[in-house]
Amino acid sequence: MELLSATLQSIGLPDEKAAEAAQLRLDSLTKPLGALGIIEHIVVRLAAIQGQAIPDLGDKVVLVMAGDHGVVAEGVSAYPQEVTPQMVMNFLNDGAAINVLANYTGAKVVVTDVGVLGPAIQHPNLNVRKIREGTRNMVREAAMTEAEAVAAIEAGIEIVQAEIDAGATLIATGEMGIGNTTPSSAILAAYSGVDLDIITGRGTGLDDSGRKKKIEVIKQALDLHQPDPNRPLEVLAKVGGLEIAALTGVIIGASARRVPVLVDGFISTAAALLACKMNERCRDFLFASHLSQEPGHRIMLEYLGLRPVLHLDLRVGEGTGAVLTFPIFEAAVKLTKEMATFGEAGVSNKE
Amino acid sequence: MELLSATLQSIGLPDEKAAEAAQLRLDSLTKPLGALGIIEHIVVRLAAIQGQAIPDLGDKVVLVMAGDHGVVAEGVSAYPQEVTPQMVMNFLNDGAAINVLANYTGAKVVVTDVGVLGPAIQHPNLNVRKIREGTRNMVREAAMTEAEAVAAIEAGIEIVQAEIDAGATLIATGEMGIGNTTPSSAILAAYSGVDLDIITGRGTGLDDSGRKKKIEVIKQALDLHQPDPNRPLEVLAKVGGLEIAALTGVIIGASARRVPVLVDGFISTAAALLACKMNERCRDFLFASHLSQEPGHRIMLEYLGLRPVLHLDLRVGEGTGAVLTFPIFEAAVKLTKEMATFGEAGVSNKE
Repeated sequence: MELLSATLQSIGLPDEKAAEAAQLRLDSLTKPLGALGIIEHIVVRLAAIQGQAIPDLGDKVVLVMAGDHGVVAEGVSAYPQEVTPQMVMNFLNDGAAINVLANYTGAKVVVTDVGVLGPAIQHPNLNVRKIREGTRNMVREAAMTEAEAVAAIEAGIEIVQAEIDAGATLIATGEMGIGNTTPSSAILAAYSGVDLDIITGRGTGLDDSGRKKKIEVIKQALDLHQPDPNRPLEVLAKVGGLEIAALTGVIIGASARRVPVLVDGFISTAAALLACKMNERCRDFLFASHLSQEPGHRIMLEYLGLRPVLHLDLRVGEGTGAVLTFPIFEAAVKLTKEMATFGEAGVSNKE
Repeated sequence: MELLSATLQSIGLPDEKAAEAAQLRLDSLTKPLGALGIIEHIVVRLAAIQGQAIPDLGDKVVLVMAGDHGVVAEGVSAYPQEVTPQMVMNFLNDGAAINVLANYTGAKVVVTDVGVLGPAIQHPNLNVRKIREGTRNMVREAAMTEAEAVAAIEAGIEIVQAEIDAGATLIATGEMGIGNTTPSSAILAAYSGVDLDIITGRGTGLDDSGRKKKIEVIKQALDLHQPDPNRPLEVLAKVGGLEIAALTGVIIGASARRVPVLVDGFISTAAALLACKMNERCRDFLFASHLSQEPGHRIMLEYLGLRPVLHLDLRVGEGTGAVLTFPIFEAAVKLTKEMATFGEAGVSNKE
């Protein structure tokens, strides 16, 4: 708890002077004023995070947190639970979507087992921070104790800060955990009050009756636990997940170090929501990457005031949407650095 | 006219067998069925265009067509007309947004003067296919003769096909022409029948009274010419532009060679609309890249049934949004080629 408290307290404010200087630079470049749209917002916010007028991006890392979910016993997933460790192995063997995208964009993939069922895989590229073998079934009892949730958050803080110490300048969040849209919808429900029928999706591919059952399961869990939205740690422990907790830690840990985080889809955004509830200053260090096919994702992003740039209807998770957004961010920085100004190019400015 | 007619007649159909084979391949990969969303649509359509189950992408080229507009005399642009040749020089000096983005994504920029005011710039990297020094003022007379429009279209066909002969596998459309959102809105109005107040935007940055004047100008031009929507060449000649005509040719020329075209923003999409009106088969070779800040763009894309993937509120033109989408396309192809299948990875499939 000490690491979490200290990290939360060390999150600073954006540098508004750097943001203004970045906008001045953008306004001097040979394009209509404001014409780069969201690219300009990205640049200005990166400048404010980094405290420099012209932001700089170097190493990019995607942190994939894996964990299992006791609630899968209720039949809330289209895929069997054994897929979680199988996919962890697939990540380690460079065969998953996230590996292909990370290789393409020149990013590093860091995989962590924070709570996969079964014994930990022995592999040099796997971080093992297994808090427990999957969460408990939230329909019957709290998914985790608060101590377990804190341990998973602190694992996330330590892992992201080790990557930042090693040079990471841009972090993407990713996850793997069969059943993890269920806790994500439950977390959103605890905060938004929006009808479960609207914020509960098909996950990896439930049919109509599967989705109906999933809604019922989430309702049961919320009725049983009545988590207090003013205590995000309670919400996380009662209806969350270990990988969601670890990602909450990633966001808090990166924010404390003033390193921007590209948030992936529905599950990652649930972690972002909890991080912002623990310290609203986290929001200034977050960027939404894509709009997922999960119907609750749009509501969650609107609740956080984050705007996604990719509209690809992805629902893979793993950090795929966030990593696909890396090129947009790198391009944004390059435009700021490399475009000619009106003066340099001898182009007439607005009349 | 012969080249245009022959090219239009040689546009073929998508290869549905290859599309099916591509979907089968995607379904075998270690991800939930359909979870790559629009990425899967991109792959399937690329397969259908190329006639192979696993599509392949190599050299990428953005064709920037530049032309001026007589209608600028009516005060429809926030920037002076001299900016068109100045920006052409900026492209040739590698200082514009499109250059930075093309360098970043590893694409080639091909700049063509199809109708810039003043004498042609002498530069080894500039294609000069100047049909005339800017269009005529559409409020008083047709912007071009039909013969001029055909000549500009045919220039586009020849230029894109030369790039394809040299190895281009993916084409982006780009343009530069002070005032060119005015003809683009006029073209959209001729087809959509939507209120001019809705489809006429601020272009590079008009204020309210400027936009009001622009609407009035477009209305006057349409009232004067009453272009027949069943004759797209007439629409193009009366209320279009030389760079729009050249991009229409680019789309027709690439479609005839079965090479996919990534359409940029509002002006490029006006060219796509005309190309599809000349031969609806063009649509199968087109992809929308981004949703522009110009309000008519969404309507135009819906009219064409094209769905943009980037939501960045860009309004730069030059091909910037299309080139920013290149990484998504390259990533889509790499996912198809490089992801492990369920069998290869030993991952359990859907229950």
